[in-house]
Amino acid sequence: MATEKEAQGGLEWRVSVPEGSAAEMELESKWIHRARTWLIQLVMTVVSKVTSFGKKAGKIGADDPRKVIHGVKVGIALTLVSLFYYTRPLYDGVGGCALWAVMTVVVVFEFTVGGCLYKGINRAVATSTAGTLAVGIHWIASKSGEKVEPIILSSSVFLLASAATFSRFIPNIKARFDYGITIFILTFSLVAVSGYRVDELLRLAQVRICTIAIGIAICLVVCVLVRPVWAGQELHLLVSRNMDKLADSLEGLVEDYFMKDKKVEGEVSCSQRSQGYKNVLNSKASEDSQANLARWEPGHGKFGFKHPWSQYLKVGAAMRYCAYCMEALNGCINSEIQAPEHMKRHLRDVCMRLSLGSSKVLKEISSSVKSMKESRSIQVLVGEMNDAVEELQVALRSLPKQLTQSPAAAAEAATIEKRHCVPATTISLMEVMPLFTAVSLLIEVSERVGGVVDAVGTLATLACFEPIDHKKASSSVVPQDEESMKPSQEV
Amino acid sequence: MATEKEAQGGLEWRVSVPEGSAAEMELESKWIHRARTWLIQLVMTVVSKVTSFGKKAGKIGADDPRKVIHGVKVGIALTLVSLFYYTRPLYDGVGGCALWAVMTVVVVFEFTVGGCLYKGINRAVATSTAGTLAVGIHWIASKSGEKVEPIILSSSVFLLASAATFSRFIPNIKARFDYGITIFILTFSLVAVSGYRVDELLRLAQVRICTIAIGIAICLVVCVLVRPVWAGQELHLLVSRNMDKLADSLEGLVEDYFMKDKKVEGEVSCSQRSQGYKNVLNSKASEDSQANLARWEPGHGKFGFKHPWSQYLKVGAAMRYCAYCMEALNGCINSEIQAPEHMKRHLRDVCMRLSLGSSKVLKEISSSVKSMKESRSIQVLVGEMNDAVEELQVALRSLPKQLTQSPAAAAEAATIEKRHCVPATTISLMEVMPLFTAVSLLIEVSERVGGVVDAVGTLATLACFEPIDHKKASSSVVPQDEESMKPSQEV
Repeated sequence: MATEKEAQGGLEWRVSVPEGSAAEMELESKWIHRARTWLIQLVMTVVSKVTSFGKKAGKIGADDPRKVIHGVKVGIALTLVSLFYYTRPLYDGVGGCALWAVMTVVVVFEFTVGGCLYKGINRAVATSTAGTLAVGIHWIASKSGEKVEPIILSSSVFLLASAATFSRFIPNIKARFDYGITIFILTFSLVAVSGYRVDELLRLAQVRICTIAIGIAICLVVCVLVRPVWAGQELHLLVSRNMDKLADSLEGLVEDYFMKDKKVEGEVSCSQRSQGYKNVLNSKASEDSQANLARWEPGHGKFGFKHPWSQYLKVGAAMRYCAYCMEALNGCINSEIQAPEHMKRHLRDVCMRLSLGSSKVLKEISSSVKSMKESRSIQVLVGEMNDAVEELQVALRSLPKQLTQSPAAAAEAATIEKRHCVPATTISLMEVMPLFTAVSLLIEVSERVGGVVDAVGTLATLACFEPIDHKKASSSVVPQDEESMKPSQEV
Repeated sequence: MATEKEAQGGLEWRVSVPEGSAAEMELESKWIHRARTWLIQLVMTVVSKVTSFGKKAGKIGADDPRKVIHGVKVGIALTLVSLFYYTRPLYDGVGGCALWAVMTVVVVFEFTVGGCLYKGINRAVATSTAGTLAVGIHWIASKSGEKVEPIILSSSVFLLASAATFSRFIPNIKARFDYGITIFILTFSLVAVSGYRVDELLRLAQVRICTIAIGIAICLVVCVLVRPVWAGQELHLLVSRNMDKLADSLEGLVEDYFMKDKKVEGEVSCSQRSQGYKNVLNSKASEDSQANLARWEPGHGKFGFKHPWSQYLKVGAAMRYCAYCMEALNGCINSEIQAPEHMKRHLRDVCMRLSLGSSKVLKEISSSVKSMKESRSIQVLVGEMNDAVEELQVALRSLPKQLTQSPAAAAEAATIEKRHCVPATTISLMEVMPLFTAVSLLIEVSERVGGVVDAVGTLATLACFEPIDHKKASSSVVPQDEESMKPSQEV
């Protein structure tokens, strides 16, 4: 269209069609075609990447809506702080320093209340101590003459920054005051190095501390009032959820091993269930950090101010100790060499009973932790688990006979046994080794479950779990299970 | 003395000594005594606490002097930044914004070069993108009238802060851009919410980006030039050190088990050595963070820019997989039930050979990783390890006879065996179970060592380890060992 118009308007314009133009145009159209294909592909890739990213983000949000809420909370806190810039009286009061309020909100706002308090308290204390110290040194420096002043200030910054940075490598300090030390160095350097006079500094420090306090206050109010996430409660739930996973996993592993041929269809879901112990293996880092933050939290819900959070770490360690053994059991179950079917059959029922017994113990203490009530039936369940261990040992004791007794030779056995002899057609020990190992590890796992029970027992004492009403406990067992499950939904 | 003088000077003055004063004075002196004791105790406690803290800090510094050096480096960087305040021309240039340079140094300076680069790049990119975006929105808002302006600004802060905060929950983004997102939110909020006009903003942004660049440059220069600590090299050393620990631990465990009675004196040191695998169990977090930071580092020493850091994580996972099994082995070795001595003796030599074989394999790949040279003898060593597994299996196959042959019955055996019978005086299977389990786990450990070898093989391919000179390799084995050990000291 444009070319036609131009041709009509201007005589000078001519379309020149040199020879070979058809070929060139073909080339050109090929080129255009390629470029178009490339562009479409590019757009498609970008769209698919964005879509998959969006799906991923959507899944994360759907799995834990609190993460979305956290985003909204940060938005609210920042919007509240930005009000300081638009409301006149506030502006006049803290105006120029409102920068610090915004910065405080951005840096201090954390997912959990404990995280918020940890950073808020660290920031407040570090700012005030470092500020005071710096003003003091500034005052000394200002009295000692213009030439000495920068030397005093620079060397004090050098020494304090070096010492404070090194102190971050001390584990206890790192765990509790890491953020505070950063802020300490920052505040001290800024104040000591600034060119202000001491009286100006005092006024500035006052305003700055005030704005930081406002920032921290806004953070805490929004963090605590809008759907709070407590680090302590998270830790509490993580530990009890991990116990359930261990229990399921143990049942699943033993079932996988002994019922392998029976259910091929359900195997995938069963195997997934049996791999839950892996979560326990990898949860040390989150347990540590949550216990660390939980210390900063005031009492909330069922947890007092001095709730023994460090004991949860011991329970976690006992569970991991259990999970290590289950990992070895898993390896042994998936071993290439499998014991003969009749040997497995001999031990199947006792092994299943033991795994079920251990799993019941784990589930019981899990629900006891969840509800923060002493368990009524734990003694009975541990007793049952130990009985199952003994039964398994009895079954093992009767194995040497089985070991040497092939089904065909069974008829012979009676006569031979009278002569105090067994037939020498022994099954290779290599064949039964994985079975022995599995059984032995199963017994070891149940022993380590005992360790978890002990750790939870100490937790129950330290955290003053609600004691059992012995009258009720003896009257019936079923209602207790229902009761102990109920509060878990409330948590 | 004072009372005498006063008595001489003033007649009015009289010392009144009421009845019971002796008792009161005694009480008072008791009180003073108590207070003094308490004060002394307090001082002692404080002194002892400070001393123990100092000792702890001293030990940390002595164990790893780089931590002390890091403190000094931070001091140097901060002192360099503070020069901006005392050097006139520089002051005039970036003066009021030097705050940002100090802040950048304090916040960006990390222990490793990777950490420094991660934070520096994140800070620079986030500041510039957020600044540009905020200036754009500010401009739009300023055009839309005084009433709409705060609404546009506040809602943009709310939306962007919420979205950015939520994006931190996406694992990939969290791992690479966590710090950048904080700075993005901070910069955007500060700029969008500030009361400046757009042209003022542009000048401010320019100065601020300039000061941040100066801060980052000082950080990087000090971090790289003064005894740099590379996250990649740390990861590299951690992984190869962990392999050595696994190797020692495996040897130690098996020695502990089979030589328990032989050396009671050396047991403590031996047990300590055998517990090295626990370090491997707990090193996931540091491996992850170091691999994460190593990605930001340019090529250094023997490591190229695209060094396959993520493969180290796979090697680490394979080692942990090994360590889980060793943890179960440890439990089994410390079991209360111990196999009869003559049974243990039967398997001792083959088990020791297997543990030594596996340990040699681990040490060989460790030195191969350290020196970044393909190993010459790994095939031979793995072959030896597998031979040892087979030997152990042969020894196990000959066990059923041993199982039923008490030393006393040994003489009888020959006659009985002719009749194809074994005596029915069987040793309880329960007694030998821990031995079987230990042996079985030992075999499993050696299999998992194979997994570590494979992971290191992949690493060797990806990281282009120096290939073997086959001529040299075939000529002798001893010099190769020496050679492969040498570079480990250089690393």
